[in-house]
Amino acid sequence: MSVRIGVIGVGMIGQDHIRRITQVLTGGSVTAVNDVDAARAGQVAAGLPGAVTYPTAQELIADGNVDAVLVASWGPAHEEQVVAAIAAGKPVFCEKPLAPSRDACQRIMDAEMAAGRRLVQVGFMRRYDAGYRAMKAALDDGDLGAPLLMHCAHRNPSVPDYGFTTDMIISDSSVHEIDIVRWLFGEEIVAASVLTPRRSGHAPEGLQDPLILVLEMSGGALVDDELFVSARYGYDVRGEVVCETGTVALADVSEVTVRTQNRHSGRVPVDWRDRFIRAYDTELQEWLDAVAAGTAAGPTSWDGFAAAVVTDAALEALRTGQRTAVSMPERPEFYAK
Amino acid sequence: MSVRIGVIGVGMIGQDHIRRITQVLTGGSVTAVNDVDAARAGQVAAGLPGAVTYPTAQELIADGNVDAVLVASWGPAHEEQVVAAIAAGKPVFCEKPLAPSRDACQRIMDAEMAAGRRLVQVGFMRRYDAGYRAMKAALDDGDLGAPLLMHCAHRNPSVPDYGFTTDMIISDSSVHEIDIVRWLFGEEIVAASVLTPRRSGHAPEGLQDPLILVLEMSGGALVDDELFVSARYGYDVRGEVVCETGTVALADVSEVTVRTQNRHSGRVPVDWRDRFIRAYDTELQEWLDAVAAGTAAGPTSWDGFAAAVVTDAALEALRTGQRTAVSMPERPEFYAK
Amino acid sequence: MSVRIGVIGVGMIGQDHIRRITQVLTGGSVTAVNDVDAARAGQVAAGLPGAVTYPTAQELIADGNVDAVLVASWGPAHEEQVVAAIAAGKPVFCEKPLAPSRDACQRIMDAEMAAGRRLVQVGFMRRYDAGYRAMKAALDDGDLGAPLLMHCAHRNPSVPDYGFTTDMIISDSSVHEIDIVRWLFGEEIVAASVLTPRRSGHAPEGLQDPLILVLEMSGGALVDDELFVSARYGYDVRGEVVCETGTVALADVSEVTVRTQNRHSGRVPVDWRDRFIRAYDTELQEWLDAVAAGTAAGPTSWDGFAAAVVTDAALEALRTGQRTAVSMPERPEFYAK
Amino acid sequence: MSVRIGVIGVGMIGQDHIRRITQVLTGGSVTAVNDVDAARAGQVAAGLPGAVTYPTAQELIADGNVDAVLVASWGPAHEEQVVAAIAAGKPVFCEKPLAPSRDACQRIMDAEMAAGRRLVQVGFMRRYDAGYRAMKAALDDGDLGAPLLMHCAHRNPSVPDYGFTTDMIISDSSVHEIDIVRWLFGEEIVAASVLTPRRSGHAPEGLQDPLILVLEMSGGALVDDELFVSARYGYDVRGEVVCETGTVALADVSEVTVRTQNRHSGRVPVDWRDRFIRAYDTELQEWLDAVAAGTAAGPTSWDGFAAAVVTDAALEALRTGQRTAVSMPERPEFYAK
Repeated sequence: MSVRIGVIGVGMIGQDHIRRITQVLTGGSVTAVNDVDAARAGQVAAGLPGAVTYPTAQELIADGNVDAVLVASWGPAHEEQVVAAIAAGKPVFCEKPLAPSRDACQRIMDAEMAAGRRLVQVGFMRRYDAGYRAMKAALDDGDLGAPLLMHCAHRNPSVPDYGFTTDMIISDSSVHEIDIVRWLFGEEIVAASVLTPRRSGHAPEGLQDPLILVLEMSGGALVDDELFVSARYGYDVRGEVVCETGTVALADVSEVTVRTQNRHSGRVPVDWRDRFIRAYDTELQEWLDAVAAGTAAGPTSWDGFAAAVVTDAALEALRTGQRTAVSMPERPEFYAK
Repeated sequence: MSVRIGVIGVGMIGQDHIRRITQVLTGGSVTAVNDVDAARAGQVAAGLPGAVTYPTAQELIADGNVDAVLVASWGPAHEEQVVAAIAAGKPVFCEKPLAPSRDACQRIMDAEMAAGRRLVQVGFMRRYDAGYRAMKAALDDGDLGAPLLMHCAHRNPSVPDYGFTTDMIISDSSVHEIDIVRWLFGEEIVAASVLTPRRSGHAPEGLQDPLILVLEMSGGALVDDELFVSARYGYDVRGEVVCETGTVALADVSEVTVRTQNRHSGRVPVDWRDRFIRAYDTELQEWLDAVAAGTAAGPTSWDGFAAAVVTDAALEALRTGQRTAVSMPERPEFYAK
Repeated sequence: MSVRIGVIGVGMIGQDHIRRITQVLTGGSVTAVNDVDAARAGQVAAGLPGAVTYPTAQELIADGNVDAVLVASWGPAHEEQVVAAIAAGKPVFCEKPLAPSRDACQRIMDAEMAAGRRLVQVGFMRRYDAGYRAMKAALDDGDLGAPLLMHCAHRNPSVPDYGFTTDMIISDSSVHEIDIVRWLFGEEIVAASVLTPRRSGHAPEGLQDPLILVLEMSGGALVDDELFVSARYGYDVRGEVVCETGTVALADVSEVTVRTQNRHSGRVPVDWRDRFIRAYDTELQEWLDAVAAGTAAGPTSWDGFAAAVVTDAALEALRTGQRTAVSMPERPEFYAK
Repeated sequence: MSVRIGVIGVGMIGQDHIRRITQVLTGGSVTAVNDVDAARAGQVAAGLPGAVTYPTAQELIADGNVDAVLVASWGPAHEEQVVAAIAAGKPVFCEKPLAPSRDACQRIMDAEMAAGRRLVQVGFMRRYDAGYRAMKAALDDGDLGAPLLMHCAHRNPSVPDYGFTTDMIISDSSVHEIDIVRWLFGEEIVAASVLTPRRSGHAPEGLQDPLILVLEMSGGALVDDELFVSARYGYDVRGEVVCETGTVALADVSEVTVRTQNRHSGRVPVDWRDRFIRAYDTELQEWLDAVAAGTAAGPTSWDGFAAAVVTDAALEALRTGQRTAVSMPERPEFYAK
């Protein structure tokens, strides 16, 4: 049977997930929507036959026609909404970040553990990208030996001229690599450092862009992550894991090679949507499948918590210019792999 | 509303389409199945909640709970089944070939024209591949000038040791290029020749493999198509269109690059399913979308007919060793682009 | 000791070889020059300390300070000059074509066989290209099985608007592939056909460009060679040999990859000089080394003869539109590999 | 006229340069050799017609038949030999390192400045590699904007099990990147840090391998350099410069692409010689040309000095684990670009 989903937050991301559920994926339907902007909620619901709107997230969660909840509201609202879904015993997909602070994430984990079963999946969609999955398969295969290093680059063509801060390069951009390296290596991150190269003349005023974030894994491997949000030439996500007997790297993603004007060339994606649209599709399909099967899969509350803890350390490293240890508690048995 | 589909023929391809409709795509459900092997039909239906089986295709087509028909039976049965669906006024997706003979295809077109609206989509899935779509976009863009040549290669790792004939290299393999070049160039094929290179020692006994098929387009462009069904190393489909000021070629499809043992390398697909699985998904999703919208899109009966006519010429060319003109009639106005 | 070279013909190619001998390679010096244009000969000699000019090729060849002869005059003059060098017992490097007719080539072979030792090397420089050499090594290695097919493309950005004929696409351009496939496959060519695709709007008036030349090897392998002298986008030479268990292809030659404006790209060479400059260097260095060692290596008079015979067949095929058998005599024992 | 060269030090590198001068390059001959191992010097000279051996470097330098000196002895001997060549007014090519200490390099510069003209070229051969030259051309072109970052990797398949120390990863391996980034960016290095990732199980006992060296350029750009001398899979040198509007990276160097066993692949060089042999050729040819022309070009004593100063800082950073400022003096006017 189709999973009936209530969507909380119908801005750009929420609407895109609704499009995905209704026009791309199988096994789900949107039966309820809620947004802080009631008019926007109404407009979105108008395009969804049979969907109702609720003035509050609580009411949406309580709806008997809502089997599972998708949280795409802004970060500060996540904790209350996710905890409410847990309290209602309903599976919840929460866009990243799980919550903006370590403590809020801890409270979500506490609620989930109290509920006694995994209900939360966090929206780290890169784990569903065909490239990263092939990379993980190559690592897990073992032929390349132990991973020692990873080189990452995360380049956006541009960010808005106003409102995007250097902290957001860490909290919004690097959080993707923070999660992906934890998943690829199967280890926690124990320390972070931030290096500040020459600033691009195309960076918005006041923005220190690019940055290099260095992460140390519990097993000793090092990750360097170039973060460059004013890279201009395209949206380019690159990664190479260096192992004891070989390396594995994300390949370029162009469908065709063009030869013209003394160049042979392929395209670089224009934005994150272009690059990762299928990862989003796979992510949400697997969530729907798991909900329908009564199971849980994908990034957990612990992954959301760990990302928050590492992000805190990385922000501290950015502020102080110092290597900053990550104060990660033991992973609860509840979240054992 | 979901499109209720009746599936005729539930062998490997039919079952794969059922998996696709029920587990991957949105907007469709399988409500009825039919197969020459009633037991197999029953087994498949057993896994589909609410689906019924019919002893004949006719009964399935007549079912009021069947909105549209998917024909995945063997080729000789297609004509009768497709014509019946047309007679019932129901949209029908027919796996390639539309029918095994030119005359049968003609009768399908006659029926469809008599019905007065397009109901048939033929399963030429390469038109839905991201690579070919990017290639067509590059051609249509016009920056490369007029296309003059296309070089194709269509390599399968192997075919069964028994039962696969040299004729089938034309009728089963090259039919994909026959359709795709008609679509890419927006022109008909006017002549075919077949060249027979040295035979691979790995080809099954009696099989002339590889072949080169040369196609001449109505505008004068030439297409050479290497067909090699015992290529061993993988499933590799390649294509480069040479235009007046540049070329566009399918890129390799590997997700990652591995460096080990003094090589940097990417993967080659293992089979057609691996290579084109997403094209099949897109193909059927777009068919479902069109059916739901009451429209028609994709390859038409005319495309199925044209493929049959060109295949006949290519088989004649194989037999005689001569360049063979294609006796293509005028395209009926009904099938104008 | 340094090989003292007399250069006959000091046009563009001859001057380039002189530059090579004096500024790039080791073991050679230019001691004499001759040209039909005596003034040009004098100008070139003026830049070469110790070099003398001769009014005739015969006098140059007779000079005791000339150990070996480099023939870079125009084709119709080759026969007399090469035969004179043979008569003088001096090694001679002759730019392609060895001579413009099959009969002239035969007379050169006759002279060389009468002299009793190999004195002639013909300027098929592609055999010295690192790409073709790696391709040949891969074929000779045997891991890929027997070669069955080769796909070639030979694209020039443009040719002069006047004076370049369709015949010259065969005689000047395709002769490079004619030689290279004989060398790669270690077989003779037994037949040729020419296909004429749609003509590029950028081809000079009266030129049928592009062409496809199809060559049949004595062992049954087929070679298709796209010849396109108005390709505009650059000078691009491509080749893929398809074997029983794999293929080997020339790689692109760009030194760097640039990412900008939503493309990742590498350069395509601007002309043949850019693409093959090192092949020319290696070719002439190996000739100098062989001369110094009193041995002979590289393409022989037989190779020059065979190229002329195949070119004749290809020109006939172009004229008639028919597959044309190559009337190749037995290879003389003298030229056994 | 040919430059008559005296070679000091005829171990592996010295002999390779002799082979190069006598068998590959033009315009040079080896007229004298010296080595601490007199027997080895004699053996090498025996293969060089007309060459004499000298028991001391001083005597070789004093020989009137020696126009220029090539120093390929071990590092500690360089200073005395280079200074002696300067004193004799003879151009000298000195393999890297110019001298093992900053002070020794300073004394060489002092001697050269006192002599009043540039006589020393240091053997940083990467500046002559076609890849790095294309990279520099792309940067100097300006279209990519200012360079902000560079990512380097320098991977050797293995080092000897005994005798290779972690310090040598800095002094022998990273010195190549230290020089090349100074040249590429046209800036000095102002600080160095060393990161120590998980150690490869294939590294010889006691060796901390891989390392990451971080260099800060005077203009603010950052360079990260992965140094991995037990990389096993091949010799791989990679580099990408990230600029304000695009990037430029060294391309892979394989001549052919092979498709077999479900992979398409190219080769990775087996060792530094395989990768950089042509860079060595170009380097020494340009030196010979400059000597013959009475000019000086290429890496100077200042470049050798700067490399020593940065290496000292990097070794200090390795020892202390701290970012270490480079105490670089002003560049003398004598060495202005």
